[in-house]
Amino acid sequence: MSEKFQTVRGMRDFLPEQAVKKQFIEDVCRQVFEKYGFAPLQTPVVEEFKLLAKKGSGGEAIKDEIYYFKDKSERELGMRFDLTVPLARIVANNPQLPKPFKRYQIADVYRYDRPGASRYRKFTQADIDIVGSFSMLADFECIAASIEILQKLGLKFKVRISNRNLLEEIAVCCGIEKESVKECFRCIDKLDKIGREGVASELKEKGIASKILDTIEKNNIAEVVKQVKKKEGLEELKELMALFKKAGIDKFVKIDLSLARGLEYYTGNVFEIAIENGPSVGGGGRYDNLVASYGGQQTPAVGISLGVDRILDALQNKLKPQAGAKVFVVPIGKEMQVQALELVQKIRAVGINAAMDLNSRGISKNLDYANKLGIPFVAILGEKEAKEKKFSLKNMKTGKEKKVKIADLKKLKDKLK
Amino acid sequence: MSEKFQTVRGMRDFLPEQAVKKQFIEDVCRQVFEKYGFAPLQTPVVEEFKLLAKKGSGGEAIKDEIYYFKDKSERELGMRFDLTVPLARIVANNPQLPKPFKRYQIADVYRYDRPGASRYRKFTQADIDIVGSFSMLADFECIAASIEILQKLGLKFKVRISNRNLLEEIAVCCGIEKESVKECFRCIDKLDKIGREGVASELKEKGIASKILDTIEKNNIAEVVKQVKKKEGLEELKELMALFKKAGIDKFVKIDLSLARGLEYYTGNVFEIAIENGPSVGGGGRYDNLVASYGGQQTPAVGISLGVDRILDALQNKLKPQAGAKVFVVPIGKEMQVQALELVQKIRAVGINAAMDLNSRGISKNLDYANKLGIPFVAILGEKEAKEKKFSLKNMKTGKEKKVKIADLKKLKDKLK
Repeated sequence: MSEKFQTVRGMRDFLPEQAVKKQFIEDVCRQVFEKYGFAPLQTPVVEEFKLLAKKGSGGEAIKDEIYYFKDKSERELGMRFDLTVPLARIVANNPQLPKPFKRYQIADVYRYDRPGASRYRKFTQADIDIVGSFSMLADFECIAASIEILQKLGLKFKVRISNRNLLEEIAVCCGIEKESVKECFRCIDKLDKIGREGVASELKEKGIASKILDTIEKNNIAEVVKQVKKKEGLEELKELMALFKKAGIDKFVKIDLSLARGLEYYTGNVFEIAIENGPSVGGGGRYDNLVASYGGQQTPAVGISLGVDRILDALQNKLKPQAGAKVFVVPIGKEMQVQALELVQKIRAVGINAAMDLNSRGISKNLDYANKLGIPFVAILGEKEAKEKKFSLKNMKTGKEKKVKIADLKKLKDKLK
Repeated sequence: MSEKFQTVRGMRDFLPEQAVKKQFIEDVCRQVFEKYGFAPLQTPVVEEFKLLAKKGSGGEAIKDEIYYFKDKSERELGMRFDLTVPLARIVANNPQLPKPFKRYQIADVYRYDRPGASRYRKFTQADIDIVGSFSMLADFECIAASIEILQKLGLKFKVRISNRNLLEEIAVCCGIEKESVKECFRCIDKLDKIGREGVASELKEKGIASKILDTIEKNNIAEVVKQVKKKEGLEELKELMALFKKAGIDKFVKIDLSLARGLEYYTGNVFEIAIENGPSVGGGGRYDNLVASYGGQQTPAVGISLGVDRILDALQNKLKPQAGAKVFVVPIGKEMQVQALELVQKIRAVGINAAMDLNSRGISKNLDYANKLGIPFVAILGEKEAKEKKFSLKNMKTGKEKKVKIADLKKLKDKLK
């Protein structure tokens, strides 16, 4: 036998059973995104390296974290590690796009991470972004759409919200020097990973007062309101929370001052969505400076990215969408093959997904095959049935069989739903 | 202003207007594929280089034709140039998959081609393959599904069919030496590109009798039937054509002996689908040896690949699917904003794609925005309307406005269809 081949390290295939579930999640995302008026965008998985290096504090250092390579003309390229970078490129290069520009993109991204549990080198993101509005309504729209998706999928989750301006003001109130603020939040961002003790000792090491940890962990907004002087971040948060209350979805969101994700990149509210007792499945925030850094006009922007692979892993045993055919047509004997073909085409014509025996197998082997594929109904066509313009329909779950008139196929469609 | 960035040479983005059309084509493909009982598969765009080099006569030489690179652990990788290679890998590595294995995959592939008109370095293929059946029914299923897709899209097209075994037998009958047969068909494959004269002189150069050109161009099957001794290929073609006749779709297909595509790879029937007076938009055939060459058991296989970009280019002006929202909600004055939010959520709740003003603009600017995005209806909400639990619905095409009760939103959904 020849050599066998595997997927590239850290990447995985989705065989039909999994791919159907994954597509189901992607379909729900797309449907809700479109319901909220987002329009699709498709971009190549390869981008210029310079473009990829431009995001946040990336630079040359991101070479270590992405798939970086040169093409045959020595162009420096890389595989996209998120869907925001191509969006920023497009907005910067297409000033004619009417604003706000609301787009969604559901696509694979690649990172040269250390592979681990629920961490892959290839994963699928479902992103929505609104470019060109400063309004908290835009933040609301992104979060509300995400909530609707996760509700539809039957997940229990919570959206935590924080705000960069508020956190920086809290830091000031806690006596942290301006030049230490970034470092401070870089430490606090590790709360989930290294715990309170770990963060406290890191802060100490860096000479940053750890009082801020108390304030943030207490998460007592009323107290914070009294303390802070610059109210900008606080107002943003309050306005956003009021919208959730109005829309009746405030039970899904909470302010969490310990959320200090990506503060070098985000400029306003920051979001994180986590499954109850489970991992993060999404995050985002407001990033009003990105487009300008890609050569566009200064343009406000806010967005959320959902992790389709993580959602799939979380839903794994709950989802049971079925792949492929609903009805499998089995001719009795090779001489019935052409009539079976006519039958399968008629079944398809009324809108039922159907397949037929392609290997001239006997009935029991065909039933076995249909069973393995989880096809719920088998249509058996013998000479006698064909003469009567009927076929036998076997319910694979109950084992029951009944005769169905070919003329009644349309009725069958409703029954099989 | 900062530096601007472009897409990688030879690749293109699909902005919303185009992406909606492209997705429409992909949706039609998926819907028909599923109707025919094909199940989805998703695989990474990056594969081991060894795997990519293994297809057909590829080898090291394909490095020039693909995106090839090494990762940080010096693994040789490449971007997939088609969707058949990952399929072969999966079938070879998963002998437990019930056969026939019918899968579809709609995804991007990458080639380091010289960019040109309708030739991109990134393009989308919609593939179906049936692995594990020798039957002509399997060939039929792939072609029939493709025909249904192109019909649904309103294209005029023809499927040309040839057969490797028949062509080789014709070559023998024309007195061509066994060792020259491959070379002979490599020349004939260039008929579209360099014309009859060109092919004839190439054949002459290589010392191959050009009599075969007459036979192939005459395309007189009845005459060929009389000539050939080994009937295998002929029988395959005849059986397949009989199935098309039975299914009433024979007008879309024709035998064309001048079709000599990929004969080093295909083992039986070969297909090519071209738009009337236009380019090829798909092709395929039977390749019974591929899976074994990837370390699997000897397994028959047949498939077709449709080129989504080419179909999009061909349909460009005919497709008018609309992106994003159907209704755009405009509050009159900032104090109506929250009520507008409630209204847009209600419109979405009945299943209508909707968006709202996020920038506190005046009516005329909002109408202008809705117009640019092609949103067909604008819902205007003033204080008076809100008190009456109504809103004004403006038809952007006719300019007509009427009052709609918020309680009647469900009825509105049917009207907007």
